[in-house]
Amino acid sequence: MSTQRILILGGDGYLGWPTAMALSQAGHRVAVVDNFAKRQWELELGIQPLFPIPTLHERVRAWQDVTGGEIELRVGDLTDYGFVEALVRDFKPDTIIHYGEQPSAPYSMIDARHAAYTQSNNVIGNLNVIFAIRDASPETHLVKLGTMGEYGTPNIDIEEGFLTVDHNGRSHTFLYPKTPGSMYHLSKVHDSHNIHFACRIWGLRATDLNQGVVYGVETDESGLDPRLATSFHYDEVFGTALNRFCVQAAIGHPLTVYGKGGQTRGYLNIRDTVQCISLAADNPAAPGEMRVFNQFTEQFSVLELAERVRVASKHVGWDAEIEHVDNPRIESEEHYYNARHTKLLDLGLEPRLLSDELIDTMLGKIHAHTDRIDRAALVQNVRWAPRVPELSLA
Amino acid sequence: MSTQRILILGGDGYLGWPTAMALSQAGHRVAVVDNFAKRQWELELGIQPLFPIPTLHERVRAWQDVTGGEIELRVGDLTDYGFVEALVRDFKPDTIIHYGEQPSAPYSMIDARHAAYTQSNNVIGNLNVIFAIRDASPETHLVKLGTMGEYGTPNIDIEEGFLTVDHNGRSHTFLYPKTPGSMYHLSKVHDSHNIHFACRIWGLRATDLNQGVVYGVETDESGLDPRLATSFHYDEVFGTALNRFCVQAAIGHPLTVYGKGGQTRGYLNIRDTVQCISLAADNPAAPGEMRVFNQFTEQFSVLELAERVRVASKHVGWDAEIEHVDNPRIESEEHYYNARHTKLLDLGLEPRLLSDELIDTMLGKIHAHTDRIDRAALVQNVRWAPRVPELSLA
Repeated sequence: MSTQRILILGGDGYLGWPTAMALSQAGHRVAVVDNFAKRQWELELGIQPLFPIPTLHERVRAWQDVTGGEIELRVGDLTDYGFVEALVRDFKPDTIIHYGEQPSAPYSMIDARHAAYTQSNNVIGNLNVIFAIRDASPETHLVKLGTMGEYGTPNIDIEEGFLTVDHNGRSHTFLYPKTPGSMYHLSKVHDSHNIHFACRIWGLRATDLNQGVVYGVETDESGLDPRLATSFHYDEVFGTALNRFCVQAAIGHPLTVYGKGGQTRGYLNIRDTVQCISLAADNPAAPGEMRVFNQFTEQFSVLELAERVRVASKHVGWDAEIEHVDNPRIESEEHYYNARHTKLLDLGLEPRLLSDELIDTMLGKIHAHTDRIDRAALVQNVRWAPRVPELSLA
Repeated sequence: MSTQRILILGGDGYLGWPTAMALSQAGHRVAVVDNFAKRQWELELGIQPLFPIPTLHERVRAWQDVTGGEIELRVGDLTDYGFVEALVRDFKPDTIIHYGEQPSAPYSMIDARHAAYTQSNNVIGNLNVIFAIRDASPETHLVKLGTMGEYGTPNIDIEEGFLTVDHNGRSHTFLYPKTPGSMYHLSKVHDSHNIHFACRIWGLRATDLNQGVVYGVETDESGLDPRLATSFHYDEVFGTALNRFCVQAAIGHPLTVYGKGGQTRGYLNIRDTVQCISLAADNPAAPGEMRVFNQFTEQFSVLELAERVRVASKHVGWDAEIEHVDNPRIESEEHYYNARHTKLLDLGLEPRLLSDELIDTMLGKIHAHTDRIDRAALVQNVRWAPRVPELSLA
C-alpha cells in the first residue's frame, strides 16, 4: 500500500490514539487533532480512565522515544470552521479518519443540554469537515465512524448501509432507514444523511463505518510502553459492555446486566477496529461514492457476553456473579437481529474473535490496575426517561 | 372543536402570522413566539418582503384593534433551553405549532457557516421543544412543520411518513427513508428522526407535516387590514416558485425556470396551510404517536407552474415570457413523482386548488405593490456546488 497523509480527528481517544500509532507504524504521515473535550467530560462526571493517560503532547513525544516515528499534533475544535478549513487546506490529507465526536449514549441522555451539546458538537463538527473537504481538498477520502446503533433493531435483516425496496411495482435503493436508540445515536444518523448528501451532490468520497461495540485494552502499539496506553473507560457513561464486565469481575462486583440481557448487538476487538480503519484507508471510496461498512465481527446478547466473562473469570480463580438490574435505557430486550458484515471481510479483515484467551488477557491487564477502579463509577445514574410522563403509555 | 391554548413558534413569519390570526379568530388562546431572526436574514441579504410589515408588537396591537382578539407575544430564541422550558412550563400549551426554523434551501447552501447555522438553529431549537414538552408539559401535542423536500425524488411512490418493507421473508415498517436535496431539507430530516425518538421513547404526541411549496399572498384574516399583511417574499432566497413567477410577471420580467423545469413537486395555497394546521390541532395525535401528513393539494412541474402564470398574465393584459436559466441547484430534472396525500383530506381538508382566478387574485394584489419590487432580488446567486471539484464526476 502506498504511503498516505492521514489526519485523525479525535486522536486523544480510546480508538483514535491506537489508530494513530498503527498508521504511523505502517509508514503513513499522521497528524492527530483533538480539543480534549473528553477530558472535560471526565472532569464533569468525576471519572478517570483505568490506565493513567499522559497528555497528548507527552504521548506524541513518547511515541517518538519508543519508535522514532513522528505523529503531528494539532489542537482545535471541529465546530470552529476556520480551524477546520485551515487544517484541511494546510495538511491536504489523503484520508481523514473522523473519530472526533461525543461517543456516549448515556452522556447524550443526561438532559436537554447534554442532548443539544451532543447533536450540535457532532453534527456541526462533521458538517465542517465535509465543507472543508469540498472547498479545500476535494480528493480527500473521509472515513467516518458511525455506529451499528444507528440501525436500531428492525424486524428485517440489517444490510450494509443501503436497502433496495420494491413497492407497488417499482424499485428504489435507499440509505438503509435507521431507528436509533439515543440522542447520541441520532447524531450519527444525522451525520450519515449529511455525508450522503456531500457524496451525491458534491462528488465527495466517503466511507461510513457502522461500528459495533468495541472491547479490549490494548493493541500491538499501545503495549509497547505504559505511556502509550489507550484511554480505557469502565464507567457507566463511557465504558462499553464487555469492558465494564471485565472490570466488575476483577473487583468481585456482580456483572450488571440490564434487564433480561436479551439485547443483541455486534462486537469487535479494538485490534480489529484498527485493522478495519487501515483497510478502509488503503481502499478508498470512489469520487461520489458513499460506502457503508458494518464494522463488527460477532453478534452476542448482553447476557451471553456476561456469561463469557463469568466463565473466563473462573479460569483465573474469580467468582463472578451475574446480576440483572433495571434497564436504564428504553429498548427492546427481545428482538430479531441479523446484521450483514461481509464488506470488510472481503477487503481482507482477519477477525480476532472473542475467546476465553482474550478475556483472560483483558482480565490480567485490568487486574494489574484494580487499585485505580472506582466502584462509584459503575452505577448507572442516567435514565432514558428520567421523569415518567403523567400519562399511561400503551 | 374545543378551545385550546396554542403556542405558535415563528409567529412573525409568512405562515406563522396568518396561522396565529386564524386560530385566534377561531376562539383559541394564542401566543406567538419569535426571535426575529428572519428580519436579520433580510438585512443580511438586503431584501424586503413585498408588503410593508409592521413589527410583531404592532401587528398584535393591530389585530386587537381590528378584531378585538388578543394574541400574546413572547420574544426569545428556541436554541436557548432556559427560555423554551420556561415558555412551555408557563403557557402549558395544548398544542405547539412549530414554524420557528430557518426555512430556505438556498440560504442554507450559501457556505459552510450558513449550513451549520441552519442545521444548528433548526435541530437544536426543535430538540429543545421536545425536551421542554417532555419535562414541563408532556400532554402537549407538537405540530411540526417539515417539508415534502425531505423525501427527495425516489423512484417509488412516496407514502405518508412510513413505509412497510418486505425483505428476505420478513417485514418491518420504517419511517419513510429520506433523500433530501439541501442542507435545509436535511435539517428537517434530522428533526423528524428526533421527533420519532421522542414519540417512541417518551410517549410524546406529534404530527409531522411534510408540507409542499406554499403560494399565495393573503388569507381571510390578512386581508382585513393592511397592517395584518403577511411577510410575502419573492426573492430568490426566500421566495417560493409560484410567488416568484407572479412577481416576475407583474414587472414584465421573464419567468425564470431552472433548467428544463421538469422538477415535479407538491403545492398548496397559503389558505390551505392555515386550514391544515387547524385540522391537525383539532385532531391531536395519540400519546406515543408520531403522525405524518403530506401537506399539499396538487402536483405540478415547475414548467407547468410557469405556464399557468403565463396564461393568467395574458388575461390581465401582460405578456409574460418563460426563460430557461441554468439550474443553480443540483437535482433531477426528470424523475418519477407520485406522493400520497390523503390523510388531511380524510380529516376534512377542502383544497382551494390553483386556478386562473387565484392567479388573477395574486397578480392583482402583487401589481398594486410593483413599486416595491427590487429586480436585483430576482437573481439567484447561491449555487449548490459553488466550486467545481477538480475531479471528473460520473
